[in-house]
Amino acid sequence: MNAAARMMRTAVDAGVDLCLANPGTTEMGLVGALDATPGMRAVLCLFEGVCTGAADGYGRMKGAPALTLLHLGPGFANGVANLHNARRARTPVVNLIGDHASWHLAADAPLTSDIESLARPVSGWLRNTTSAKEAAQDMADAIVAAGGRPGQVSTLIVPADHAIGAASSRVDVPPVTNAPAPNTERIESAARALRAGNGPVTILLGGNALGECGLAAAGRLAASFDARLVTETFPARWERGATTPAASRLPYLPEQASAFLENDALLLLAGASSPVAFFGYPGLPSEIAPDVPRCALASPDEDAAAALEQLADALDARGAPAPPAARATPAPTGALDPGKLGALLAAHLPEGAIVVDEAATSGLPFYLMSDGAPPHSLLTLTGGAIGQGPPCATGAALACPDRTVIDFQADGSALYTFQALWTQAREGLRVVTLLCSNRAYRILQVELGRAGIAEPGPKAMSLTSLEQPVIDWVKLAGSLGVPGERVETAEALDQALGRALAASGPVLIEVAL
Amino acid sequence: MNAAARMMRTAVDAGVDLCLANPGTTEMGLVGALDATPGMRAVLCLFEGVCTGAADGYGRMKGAPALTLLHLGPGFANGVANLHNARRARTPVVNLIGDHASWHLAADAPLTSDIESLARPVSGWLRNTTSAKEAAQDMADAIVAAGGRPGQVSTLIVPADHAIGAASSRVDVPPVTNAPAPNTERIESAARALRAGNGPVTILLGGNALGECGLAAAGRLAASFDARLVTETFPARWERGATTPAASRLPYLPEQASAFLENDALLLLAGASSPVAFFGYPGLPSEIAPDVPRCALASPDEDAAAALEQLADALDARGAPAPPAARATPAPTGALDPGKLGALLAAHLPEGAIVVDEAATSGLPFYLMSDGAPPHSLLTLTGGAIGQGPPCATGAALACPDRTVIDFQADGSALYTFQALWTQAREGLRVVTLLCSNRAYRILQVELGRAGIAEPGPKAMSLTSLEQPVIDWVKLAGSLGVPGERVETAEALDQALGRALAASGPVLIEVAL
Repeated sequence: MNAAARMMRTAVDAGVDLCLANPGTTEMGLVGALDATPGMRAVLCLFEGVCTGAADGYGRMKGAPALTLLHLGPGFANGVANLHNARRARTPVVNLIGDHASWHLAADAPLTSDIESLARPVSGWLRNTTSAKEAAQDMADAIVAAGGRPGQVSTLIVPADHAIGAASSRVDVPPVTNAPAPNTERIESAARALRAGNGPVTILLGGNALGECGLAAAGRLAASFDARLVTETFPARWERGATTPAASRLPYLPEQASAFLENDALLLLAGASSPVAFFGYPGLPSEIAPDVPRCALASPDEDAAAALEQLADALDARGAPAPPAARATPAPTGALDPGKLGALLAAHLPEGAIVVDEAATSGLPFYLMSDGAPPHSLLTLTGGAIGQGPPCATGAALACPDRTVIDFQADGSALYTFQALWTQAREGLRVVTLLCSNRAYRILQVELGRAGIAEPGPKAMSLTSLEQPVIDWVKLAGSLGVPGERVETAEALDQALGRALAASGPVLIEVAL
Repeated sequence: MNAAARMMRTAVDAGVDLCLANPGTTEMGLVGALDATPGMRAVLCLFEGVCTGAADGYGRMKGAPALTLLHLGPGFANGVANLHNARRARTPVVNLIGDHASWHLAADAPLTSDIESLARPVSGWLRNTTSAKEAAQDMADAIVAAGGRPGQVSTLIVPADHAIGAASSRVDVPPVTNAPAPNTERIESAARALRAGNGPVTILLGGNALGECGLAAAGRLAASFDARLVTETFPARWERGATTPAASRLPYLPEQASAFLENDALLLLAGASSPVAFFGYPGLPSEIAPDVPRCALASPDEDAAAALEQLADALDARGAPAPPAARATPAPTGALDPGKLGALLAAHLPEGAIVVDEAATSGLPFYLMSDGAPPHSLLTLTGGAIGQGPPCATGAALACPDRTVIDFQADGSALYTFQALWTQAREGLRVVTLLCSNRAYRILQVELGRAGIAEPGPKAMSLTSLEQPVIDWVKLAGSLGVPGERVETAEALDQALGRALAASGPVLIEVAL
């Protein structure tokens, strides 16, 4: 058995059984090992950003890493943007990068580059294999380091000669360790702060506080102490809908976020960091509502759900949270806008759906409309690196074949990683892409105004418009094997969503906004 | 005037007047400055790899840098692969990366990352601005560092607050320095080696030795000393056709390259490095034909054309090179293959065409067919980072609006950066994409065999096939505003090429192979 086969066997034995691959010549040993390893599934992506974004979506839903298989420095670099999102989401991912044969590196062949320098900014764990004999142990270490939920990005660089060299004997992978237990002192401190009752309280939720157990405990606290439940602006994974207590999302713009929080007497941080502005604007501080006292119950790396439960128990919080409001709005009609789109998506949401939100400016109203929708998981753009939606949805569908995935998707962002549709078609994944076609980088048009450019010139307008030419999304999806249709009215979207959710494979709906 | 406007003005004054942009919020100050700067052209690309690949193509043709405008670490990372190719091509490029406001970095906002670590592997020159006052001088230094032909990649990171701060006064940019003059000692040493006449000589050409002057001088030497002219396998830019001496391309596979050179008594290096294998294979050395004596006349960073001229003068080489053979092959008919494709492309090549070759396995026969074609420039995949063709062709067309650009393009590679077609459509560029649709990563199927995997299993086959589903390139191009057609026979390609070359804007021909 060669080292590559031993590595793949080690991964499968540890429960890591999906390889999202875009290989090149230096990965042929690892590719051969995929066939030698029953139980390891290989999925081809046509661009590395699809591999890494899919690994992010998969890891968020599975709580265990997928492998990516990437080609040297440039191939890895193509995957960095979505690994940046995975890093911010604390998603477990294991990247395998094939490098030149170790003895060939000194030749500085055309594809040689400093892979470690490219990998370090997105990798919590980074290693080069040093020999074929050590490679399977390196794989085991990478998997352990990637962890579960929360996890991190592990990157293992494997020179081609190590992959095809003679393997070590079997390597065991210890079970994944969970998030550290809650800190008793901080629970007591939070209990004192809540008991003190100095005024309005917001509980800011992130990490596993946004799972069902965390939200249930947070709901007890909210009901007992009249606290507000607020999520961080870009949660990695949020279980929402009719069976979980409702929470608001912290607004995106810093002045709005500060206004939202500034009358609080306490900001209780449960799995969320102290909030900061997404971007720095002149005259606005980095910190959101810096004068509001913070109480850190659990960091994003800790078991915030358990901390909330222990806190609720310590306070004997028996309150039952109010059920989320069921929205019975009249069926929207006529030309579409983000509000009608959000209402229709919420109305059609099947139980157990996974919504990947990269809808940007088109997506905001959906949150208000869907508190009382059937239970669903929501995954957002944690790191702000656009091009996340189509791959993340692909990975979520690979992790959860029995659930319907909605990629709620902005047009500008979709263009970075549209190749994911091909993988959705090849694998027959149940992903509905709801493509919000407003034909602009709308958020940048907003930001031009915020930057004091009240009347953008022709160049600024040109750089924020997706017109000239208009992109035909139905044709684009069709070219990659995904059927699609374009809708211009609420009535047509209503019909199209019904058809799409009944389909057995991927579908795209271009929503004219 | 703010610093961003002063920076753009500095660039235009230095003759740098094209900005290939995919901006985000942190670049709004720089975007505003584009409108404030007459003479600076702004071109939107829908993915950063298109910006950087276009800057590579532009710089190779222009001998001067374009600006790229990229968003933070993840946006820059999306451009790394084509910057890797630019680095290997020694193309002048100036990257501007907008960073968070300097005072906001400590907040570790979601998009914060270690940009320098991502940029260093592809940047010959790398700097962060330290203030608004210094920013225009930093721009000037970046342009000087990028240089001309040969050049390098300069990367300037500009925090958002520096861009909108008050500018310095006017900054002057010194003229670009040319490649260092030839080294007299090495010319004398090469002259002695040629005079010695110990046996067959190959002159290996790279850098500016592949320009018209360099080739003319090399041709005199070849005719006088019965030497072979050979180009490096992946030249950055090669002037070819009926008016320049013919040269062969060094074969790609190391055993073939070694066999090609191993009977030589002398390998004279003119603008090329001593050749090494593209990949390291077990049992084959990194060096190509390591036993053949080398004589280094000029490195890729030196003025190899001048060195060849001085060498030819010193040796009184008056020989006139034989004109390249005009190929008068009968018009191909029937089902297409790479040979017929190469013959038809060569036959249709208009004078002054720019051919960007990312055709991979489909492109080889073209070289043999086109020695005697009308004069044309050829740009190749210098760094091996695929996804270069569509952007590089876009940039070449922006640099040379009066010339026809042919993107001779493999299907697998095109999928990395096909967003370039949209920019071609928006800018009305005369680019003909000749899309070689063999529906496979054919080179990897070859490499599987070379790796000893004689009968690839279903996973290896699946990871190297682009079928299931088949990609409809005509639809894909059409979705982005580029008209296209598919051809399955030589006769149809002959007709289609005629139509495409007469068109005033971009066209795609899907060539069924």
